[in-house]
Amino acid sequence: MAHQRVAVIGASGYGGLQTLRLLHQHPHLEVSFLGGERSSGKRWSELNPFLPLKGDPVVQAPDPDAVAAAADMAVLSLPNGLAATLAPALLERGVKVVDLSADYRYRSLSQWMEVYASEARDRPRQDSDLCAEAVYGLVEWKAEAIAAARLIAAPGCFPTASLLALLPFLKQGLIEPNGIIIDAKTGTSGGGRAAKEHLLLAEASEAVAPYGVVGHRHTSEIEQLASEVAGSPITLQFTPHLMPMVRGLLATVYCRLRDPGLTAADCSTMLSSAYRGSPTVQVLPVGTYPSTKWVRQTNRALLSVQVDNRSGQLIVMSAIDNLIKGQAGQGVQCLNLMAGLDAQTGLPLLPFYP
Amino acid sequence: MAHQRVAVIGASGYGGLQTLRLLHQHPHLEVSFLGGERSSGKRWSELNPFLPLKGDPVVQAPDPDAVAAAADMAVLSLPNGLAATLAPALLERGVKVVDLSADYRYRSLSQWMEVYASEARDRPRQDSDLCAEAVYGLVEWKAEAIAAARLIAAPGCFPTASLLALLPFLKQGLIEPNGIIIDAKTGTSGGGRAAKEHLLLAEASEAVAPYGVVGHRHTSEIEQLASEVAGSPITLQFTPHLMPMVRGLLATVYCRLRDPGLTAADCSTMLSSAYRGSPTVQVLPVGTYPSTKWVRQTNRALLSVQVDNRSGQLIVMSAIDNLIKGQAGQGVQCLNLMAGLDAQTGLPLLPFYP
Amino acid sequence: MAHQRVAVIGASGYGGLQTLRLLHQHPHLEVSFLGGERSSGKRWSELNPFLPLKGDPVVQAPDPDAVAAAADMAVLSLPNGLAATLAPALLERGVKVVDLSADYRYRSLSQWMEVYASEARDRPRQDSDLCAEAVYGLVEWKAEAIAAARLIAAPGCFPTASLLALLPFLKQGLIEPNGIIIDAKTGTSGGGRAAKEHLLLAEASEAVAPYGVVGHRHTSEIEQLASEVAGSPITLQFTPHLMPMVRGLLATVYCRLRDPGLTAADCSTMLSSAYRGSPTVQVLPVGTYPSTKWVRQTNRALLSVQVDNRSGQLIVMSAIDNLIKGQAGQGVQCLNLMAGLDAQTGLPLLPFYP
Amino acid sequence: MAHQRVAVIGASGYGGLQTLRLLHQHPHLEVSFLGGERSSGKRWSELNPFLPLKGDPVVQAPDPDAVAAAADMAVLSLPNGLAATLAPALLERGVKVVDLSADYRYRSLSQWMEVYASEARDRPRQDSDLCAEAVYGLVEWKAEAIAAARLIAAPGCFPTASLLALLPFLKQGLIEPNGIIIDAKTGTSGGGRAAKEHLLLAEASEAVAPYGVVGHRHTSEIEQLASEVAGSPITLQFTPHLMPMVRGLLATVYCRLRDPGLTAADCSTMLSSAYRGSPTVQVLPVGTYPSTKWVRQTNRALLSVQVDNRSGQLIVMSAIDNLIKGQAGQGVQCLNLMAGLDAQTGLPLLPFYP
Repeated sequence: MAHQRVAVIGASGYGGLQTLRLLHQHPHLEVSFLGGERSSGKRWSELNPFLPLKGDPVVQAPDPDAVAAAADMAVLSLPNGLAATLAPALLERGVKVVDLSADYRYRSLSQWMEVYASEARDRPRQDSDLCAEAVYGLVEWKAEAIAAARLIAAPGCFPTASLLALLPFLKQGLIEPNGIIIDAKTGTSGGGRAAKEHLLLAEASEAVAPYGVVGHRHTSEIEQLASEVAGSPITLQFTPHLMPMVRGLLATVYCRLRDPGLTAADCSTMLSSAYRGSPTVQVLPVGTYPSTKWVRQTNRALLSVQVDNRSGQLIVMSAIDNLIKGQAGQGVQCLNLMAGLDAQTGLPLLPFYP
Repeated sequence: MAHQRVAVIGASGYGGLQTLRLLHQHPHLEVSFLGGERSSGKRWSELNPFLPLKGDPVVQAPDPDAVAAAADMAVLSLPNGLAATLAPALLERGVKVVDLSADYRYRSLSQWMEVYASEARDRPRQDSDLCAEAVYGLVEWKAEAIAAARLIAAPGCFPTASLLALLPFLKQGLIEPNGIIIDAKTGTSGGGRAAKEHLLLAEASEAVAPYGVVGHRHTSEIEQLASEVAGSPITLQFTPHLMPMVRGLLATVYCRLRDPGLTAADCSTMLSSAYRGSPTVQVLPVGTYPSTKWVRQTNRALLSVQVDNRSGQLIVMSAIDNLIKGQAGQGVQCLNLMAGLDAQTGLPLLPFYP
Repeated sequence: MAHQRVAVIGASGYGGLQTLRLLHQHPHLEVSFLGGERSSGKRWSELNPFLPLKGDPVVQAPDPDAVAAAADMAVLSLPNGLAATLAPALLERGVKVVDLSADYRYRSLSQWMEVYASEARDRPRQDSDLCAEAVYGLVEWKAEAIAAARLIAAPGCFPTASLLALLPFLKQGLIEPNGIIIDAKTGTSGGGRAAKEHLLLAEASEAVAPYGVVGHRHTSEIEQLASEVAGSPITLQFTPHLMPMVRGLLATVYCRLRDPGLTAADCSTMLSSAYRGSPTVQVLPVGTYPSTKWVRQTNRALLSVQVDNRSGQLIVMSAIDNLIKGQAGQGVQCLNLMAGLDAQTGLPLLPFYP
Repeated sequence: MAHQRVAVIGASGYGGLQTLRLLHQHPHLEVSFLGGERSSGKRWSELNPFLPLKGDPVVQAPDPDAVAAAADMAVLSLPNGLAATLAPALLERGVKVVDLSADYRYRSLSQWMEVYASEARDRPRQDSDLCAEAVYGLVEWKAEAIAAARLIAAPGCFPTASLLALLPFLKQGLIEPNGIIIDAKTGTSGGGRAAKEHLLLAEASEAVAPYGVVGHRHTSEIEQLASEVAGSPITLQFTPHLMPMVRGLLATVYCRLRDPGLTAADCSTMLSSAYRGSPTVQVLPVGTYPSTKWVRQTNRALLSVQVDNRSGQLIVMSAIDNLIKGQAGQGVQCLNLMAGLDAQTGLPLLPFYP
């Protein structure tokens, strides 16, 4: 088949870098446009000497006409609030868009404006039609809609790990809809490449701490899809923790079984069959628990379940690479589906261990 | 006052090393006997050149008569099952014992034999009287009994962090006794100094993973004291996770308020007053969350609370240094109390940040 | 072309795991035999659940007949001294061998017996003919001989990084042959996967230390090839340091220019032209210095030079991934050449940054 | 004796935080003034909740009159170029000054203006008299002058580790004055607490890289004192490397013995006797090499020597905590001497291992 041309906007951030790395070895997609604001006009090799690109391109300002002339699809890896200033113009020009930010993750613009209030103040938006149109890019649950879409809101890293663990049980009605607790742990690369004091090695190393306790933005994003799949409103607890490592994300999900007679083996079987067709998601044997190290540099999610027979408590563990399955890899899966390819085309499944 | 002489048995392990480091600057306790099995007969400076001790003593086999001749009190930092082979003989000879292992943490020997089945097989015990006599060394909750005791079972690092967070709420009856979830994160030094593949830097670095999910030994240890303080049997969920760092332990405790009208400020006030007399425990302002980095190299526990008003969920966060407040520092607090000193005597409260 | 069948012996160690990971995506080589001593008889997925292999094979004892029946070539990733017990039998049966250990790195068996004295005591050898026959597998300097060989001694990680930096200058006679100093820094995975106390995360994290100062085994290995290329005996200083990281190796090489008028630009140009034909080796612009992070998960070596005009001192910096270009990747390059392929076939050149 | 009152200016940076932590347990010095620019007017506990200070003081702007009213001595922990705007006014008001920056490390202002050209442009200076007056605060070599001084330029972390290793050999004339090479390795806290992209955990973790190769500012600082002690101009090579750890600094120093017959034992004996009176400096037995982990949280320097008999090469290894003996601890030593106390008063010598 003919190659599809892809623009990567925001190329020097971690999302952009991962996207470039993944597309570099892709059999059917090729990067045809490198866009960036701060780095516009600079040669790529000066910015990122560690990632040589063919032809050593110059980074360009993301002018919609220029992007449309060069690319069929665009990946936007920009700070929240910025994608919405670019996506409409790209769509008008026929460029399909995969947005890695939060701008189109809510079906309702007003909810976005509430959750991302400061971004909404800085850059007023009126594209509620696009919010309604955008497809939430959780590939294993929205493949058909993604394949037909022209605008994808790729999920955040926390929602991806959490929802992959939770949705099969909600869909089957196996767990109580209330009292769900997600205790999540992420590497510092989730905070992006911009310099922030609390993400310095000297600060974040030898440190584990919670943040955004109660009311973290990803709570509502998780609740939105959880409610949709459960068929009724879900209110849950989501607590992120910062880990002293570069990449990787583990969600430990606690919920209560409706039928306390179910065993871990039962739940594991159910989970495996829910993801039978998805090479991206693997369910580990009961008693083997996922390490974030096992999924680094891969687009794979590892799940495992355990049950406390004393209380009917179900624990679902879910590990991903926050920058691949939690960001750029899922973005490439969306590109693949939009290009008529298998979702997993060209994506790595095995880690370079250790 | 006269100095008390302390024997440290198991001096080269992490618990022993920390104990020596802490006693090194203690105004009233002095180390008078260094005991070890594998290292017996060796000069200290050959074993641990980084921690010079006055007189560069030779490590001795922990013969009860020799220990009793040299010391008033002994800290046992030995693998589970070994302390019980030594403690009875020391007590007979009038040496007070602080045991850092799990051997005397259960009031019932038969429960210990169930939870530590393999250790019980390797080294049969019949000292159920000592199990019943031993005082659980959680200093902020057992100070009076500790001061009067001759055998202390110092709590594990996970129970210490978890119980400090949980007990005030259980005692006041502010939370539902069921559905309590403890999601705990620990540095790798908690696994000890003996070489194990999964604790190699190459394996444990850039990795976050759960282990011992459902049924970890510390679950029953936590439940024992929680039930005692609550006045009714508590069954809870405890899930430890291994973190890519040397030291530090964070417990994130989830429970449900009985009165959903309580605010985080209410809960914080209550928690502060529960620990008013304890310089070791500090409650952070609502909205400030503890990092394990803030308590490294200290005997301090940092607590913080948050409440989700939507659901009445209470989250209590608790950070300690697993080797100090979670092990050797708590042991020294017990020595202090047994010697008639303030619990906190000679112990560090401020970290060397960063 | 027809696929070549490869046996990997010592599959669960880091060298074996990397080899499997690299061959997994190789277009022309396929793993047809998994060998291991300790793990023999076990299913792969039980041993290494994080690296699923097609068909989930059972690890087998490395019986020479079984290996020969299954494979055309074998990679031996075994402790020093063990390869020499297996390689002769494999060669007799027509299996070509790439040995990742030190067993065949010296042309003279007696030198090996001197340098690896304890291994020589444990397992006496008499295969001095094979020592003389074996080709040192430094691909960029021995490609022709490797392609024609049946026994390859793949270089150690330190010699690879050091020699790539040093050889062009020695060959051209640009530097003084004496006074060369190599200060090398390695991640802990270089110490292998077996549990050792000093490689525990709790010990090796937040620690930088030299080891094997004066007389480290790799000194003589480096001197052997340096002398061969220089055409006269070279005695140099090699000091390894252990770094608190998993993988990566940096060699900082200090030497004196014969002609103090040479600039960094001159030296950089010379170095670039020495490696013009090698996609594996890249010379960075003067003033850009290599980070080990830039080569992780790649088979690439990054070099850079700087000159102190005051003294005519030349500094050559060389970064590799110790487990890929420093071990398994170089092994696969040798397999490629022996199979008539381009050396770089199927090997990754770009990192997953960060 | 009466307590001396100390002002700490730049309290929230790493140098300031360490100084506060060290003075917190000091028997004779007490912090009486907390100064800062950006944080002026804020309560300490809001800025640094992890380091509670007695009375929870408000940080003040460093007005010279206010400082002089409150303190006898001042520690300046400010960016290069800023101390020189404050020190003259403090000295005029009778406040003795220990400056942790580079502003007074050169006897000649014009050399400072050359080496710190951009700082000199931003903030023109004319205090060449103070440059000439200031005493270089390398305690083990300048104790007498420090005790009598009113202005101390505390050395940088690299010069401290390097000079402690080198000076005894230069003074005794045991090594060749040319060809000296210092390969130094530092943790990222040496770069300060201000947010910089390359010091992010995601960037600096799993990374080792050289920087400032040839011409790093500390080269001339080291050469200045080395030349003074040697009695003739020394030109040497200094190459710093950034390590993936928070704190710690190792200098590996390579030089050539004038008398190739000297053994490592000879050199070790000489080194030990040079530091006989300094509890801060410890020489390890030949064959034991210092780890930065052994000196963390201490004011100790660990030295060790090795000799290659083949070439007469001497290797001196030197490990310090970059923030204590390399910065704040050395500053406190200077305060001690200026206050008539033993240099080591109140400073920690043992690490919290691991």
